[in-house]
Amino acid sequence: MNLTEQMTQLAKHAKAASRQLAQLTTAEKNACLLAMATALEQSADAIKAANALDMEFGTQSGLSSAMLDRLKLDDKRIAGMARGLREVAVLPDPVGKILDERVRPNGLKLQKISTPIGVVVIIYESRPNVTADAASLCFKSGNATILRGGKEALNSNLIIAQTMIDAGKIAHRQFPEHAIQVVPTPDREAIPILLSLTQYVDLCMPRGGESLIRAVTECSKVPVIKHYKGVCHIFVDADADLQMAEEITMNAKVQRPGVCNAAETLLVDKAVAEKFLPVIGEKLFAKHVELRADDATREVLNSKLKIQNLKLRAVTEQDYFTEYNDYILNVRVVDGVRAAIDHINHYGSAHSDSIVTRDEAHAQQFLAEVDSAAVYWNASTRFTDGGEFGMGAEIGISTDKIGARGPMGLDELTSYKWLGIGSGQVRT
Amino acid sequence: MNLTEQMTQLAKHAKAASRQLAQLTTAEKNACLLAMATALEQSADAIKAANALDMEFGTQSGLSSAMLDRLKLDDKRIAGMARGLREVAVLPDPVGKILDERVRPNGLKLQKISTPIGVVVIIYESRPNVTADAASLCFKSGNATILRGGKEALNSNLIIAQTMIDAGKIAHRQFPEHAIQVVPTPDREAIPILLSLTQYVDLCMPRGGESLIRAVTECSKVPVIKHYKGVCHIFVDADADLQMAEEITMNAKVQRPGVCNAAETLLVDKAVAEKFLPVIGEKLFAKHVELRADDATREVLNSKLKIQNLKLRAVTEQDYFTEYNDYILNVRVVDGVRAAIDHINHYGSAHSDSIVTRDEAHAQQFLAEVDSAAVYWNASTRFTDGGEFGMGAEIGISTDKIGARGPMGLDELTSYKWLGIGSGQVRT
Repeated sequence: MNLTEQMTQLAKHAKAASRQLAQLTTAEKNACLLAMATALEQSADAIKAANALDMEFGTQSGLSSAMLDRLKLDDKRIAGMARGLREVAVLPDPVGKILDERVRPNGLKLQKISTPIGVVVIIYESRPNVTADAASLCFKSGNATILRGGKEALNSNLIIAQTMIDAGKIAHRQFPEHAIQVVPTPDREAIPILLSLTQYVDLCMPRGGESLIRAVTECSKVPVIKHYKGVCHIFVDADADLQMAEEITMNAKVQRPGVCNAAETLLVDKAVAEKFLPVIGEKLFAKHVELRADDATREVLNSKLKIQNLKLRAVTEQDYFTEYNDYILNVRVVDGVRAAIDHINHYGSAHSDSIVTRDEAHAQQFLAEVDSAAVYWNASTRFTDGGEFGMGAEIGISTDKIGARGPMGLDELTSYKWLGIGSGQVRT
Repeated sequence: MNLTEQMTQLAKHAKAASRQLAQLTTAEKNACLLAMATALEQSADAIKAANALDMEFGTQSGLSSAMLDRLKLDDKRIAGMARGLREVAVLPDPVGKILDERVRPNGLKLQKISTPIGVVVIIYESRPNVTADAASLCFKSGNATILRGGKEALNSNLIIAQTMIDAGKIAHRQFPEHAIQVVPTPDREAIPILLSLTQYVDLCMPRGGESLIRAVTECSKVPVIKHYKGVCHIFVDADADLQMAEEITMNAKVQRPGVCNAAETLLVDKAVAEKFLPVIGEKLFAKHVELRADDATREVLNSKLKIQNLKLRAVTEQDYFTEYNDYILNVRVVDGVRAAIDHINHYGSAHSDSIVTRDEAHAQQFLAEVDSAAVYWNASTRFTDGGEFGMGAEIGISTDKIGARGPMGLDELTSYKWLGIGSGQVRT
C-alpha cells in the first residue's frame, strides 16, 4: 500500500468510526474515558518503555535538552494524562444541545442541535501528552481523531493511543477501534495527502510554531482552525489607574513569557507617558525584560531612569509584528485610543489585547473596534485560556473567524444541524 | 498595475472598509440600505442601459436563451432588488448580540458577542440581482464584500454596486466607499489571487454549479463555505402514513425540481414497497418523472402498473450520487431505517433528507444519525431555505461543518469575539 492509499484508508476508517461514535450515549463515552484513564496508569511501564525508545533516538539525533524534556514521559506525566481524561469524563456532553428552536407558521418545528464535527486531524509537536488530551476531547465531543505528533514522539504516541483504544473496547463493545488513530509514519508527505481528503476529513487543527501552522494551512484542502502567533497588547489609556496598569503589564509580560497570550507590546497614551513609563520601566528592568521602544519612550526612560545597563533599544517596525515568547517587550507612545486600536489591528495577531482605563467610552470603543478573539478591559491578556474561561479543558486557541474563535473547549469541537419536525408539511 | 497588485489593492481596501463598517450603528446601516433601494429604482434606466450591453454581448457570444433570461434586468427585477434591500433594512442587526455571558470566580466578566466576519468574497454566476442581494446582506452584517459575478454580467454588476455605494455615501458621510466592490476584470486568474490573500480576506462563498464551487475550493487559501450539490432523500419507513409519504415525495420531487433542496432519491422500506411503489409510481409518471430504480422497485412497478411508455430504467451506482435538478428520481427499496441512513450518509450530499414515519424510535434514529445539514421527520426537504426557516433572507446554503451549516441568513454572516471586563484581574 503506498502512502496515498494508506492515508486514504486511515481517513476512511476515521469517517466510519465517527458515524459509530455519534451513536454512543454520554454515559457510554464517559465510561470509556474512565477506563482509558485507568489503562494509562496500569500501562505506565509499557508507555515508559516505548517513550525510552523515543528518548534514545532523540538523544542520538541531537534533540536539545528542552526538546528531550518535553518528550519525556514519567509516572507523574502519565498520571497527569489519566487525570486529564477523568476531568474530561465529568464535563457536560457538548453534543445534542438545543441551540435554537422555532415553530414556523405552518407548524413545522425547527431545532438547531449541536453535533460532532466528524473527523478531526490534530497536528502537533513534541509533547506526547497532547495525544491523550486531544484524543479525549475529540472522543467526548463525538469526533474521530487522526493524530499527527512529532516524529520524535511516534512510539510514545502510538502506545498511548493503542492503550486508550484497547480500554475503550473493553469498556464498551461498540467502541469503534478507529475512533483514535495515530498517523503511523513520520513521512512528511502524509500531511498534504491527509489534508486533501475532503470527503473524509472535516477539520484540521495544527498546534505549534508559526512555520508548522503556515505549512499546514498552505497545503490543506480541509478547513483549518488555528492561531499563527500571539502578538498581544496592553494599552494604557490616558485615564488609566496606573497602579492597575502596572500590575496588568507585569502580569501579561513576565508571569509566563513563553505562552501565546503573553504581551509583546505595551502602548502608552502620551498623556500618561511621562508618569507611567519610568515606573513600569524600572519594574520591567528589574525582571530583566529587554525593552524595544520608540523615540518618545526612550527619551522619557533615558531622562528619568538612572539605571545602569538598561536593556533598551530602538524598536523596528518588524518588532511590532513579532511574537518574542521571551523577556522582551515593545513599547510605544500613542496619541489616544484611536491610535492604539489602529496599531493593534495593524500589527497584532488578533489574539488577545487589553485596555487599562477608567474611561468607559474609551473602553467601549476599544472593546468594539479591536478585531481580536479576546479583548479585555482592565484585565490581563493572560486569561485567554480554556480553563480560565471555564471551558474545563482546552484543545487550542483560534484567531480565525469561521468556526471557533478564542479558546476552544468541548463546545468548540462541535458543529450543528437543523432538525425539522412536521406533520406532513409540504412547500407551496 | 498588474493583476496581483490590483487584487491586493481591492482586498486591502475591503479590509479597511470593514473596520469602518464595524463602527456604523444599526440605524445608520438601515438608512443606507433604504437609500440604496430608492437609488436602484431611480437609476433603473441607467441600470437597464448597462444591462443591455451585457445582453448584447451575451447574444453575440451565443448564450442560451435560459442564460440570457437570467441575465436580463427589467423594471420588475430592479424593483425586486429594491424590495430585497428594504426587507434587509427591517431585519434585526445580527451584530452585537450577547451569545454567552459568564462571571468567573475572580470576578472577570466574559461576554461572547457576535461580530462581523470582515471581508467576504462572493463568487456567483449569471444573475445580476445577486449583486444587490449579497451586498445588502453583507453590509447589514457589517462585512465588506468583494463580488465576483459572471463575466457576462459585469456591466450590470458594476452599475448596481456603484449605485448602492453612491447612495450609501449620500445617506451617511462615513459610509466606506470600498464596502461593496465588484472585481472589475473578467480575468479568471483574479480568483486564485484574491483567495490567496489571507491577511485581508476572511471568507469566500461560491454559489453556482458544482464545477465552479470545486474550482474555488481547490484554489482557495481562505475559508470557503458552500454546498457542492443537493442530493436529497425521502425515506418512506415501514410505519409511514403512505398518504403523507406520497404528498411529501411529490412535493420534494416535482414542486420545483431545479433547486438544491428537491429530492433526487426515494428510499422505500421493503415492508411497504408493494403497497407504496405502484401508487407513487403512477403519480410520478403522471408528472413525467423518469424513474431510475433498483431491481426490487422495477419488479413491483412492472408487475403492478399497467402504464404504457413507462419512463423506467435501471439505476446505476453513479445515479445515486447525482443531482439531476430535473424530472428524474432514483428509487431504491431498503431493508429498514439502518439501511436508509447508511445509503444517505454514503451517497447523499449532506444537504436535506427526510423520513416519513409514525414510529418515533425510527424517526429519532434517523434525525440523530443522518449526517446532513437539515434532517426532517414528516416534512418535505424543500423547506431548507432561509425564508422558510424564518431567517428573513438567505445568502446561501452550507453543507459544511465549520462555520454555518444549512441555510445562511444574517446571523450566519457573523463571527464572534470574547470580551473580558475586569477590575484589574491578573493571572496567578
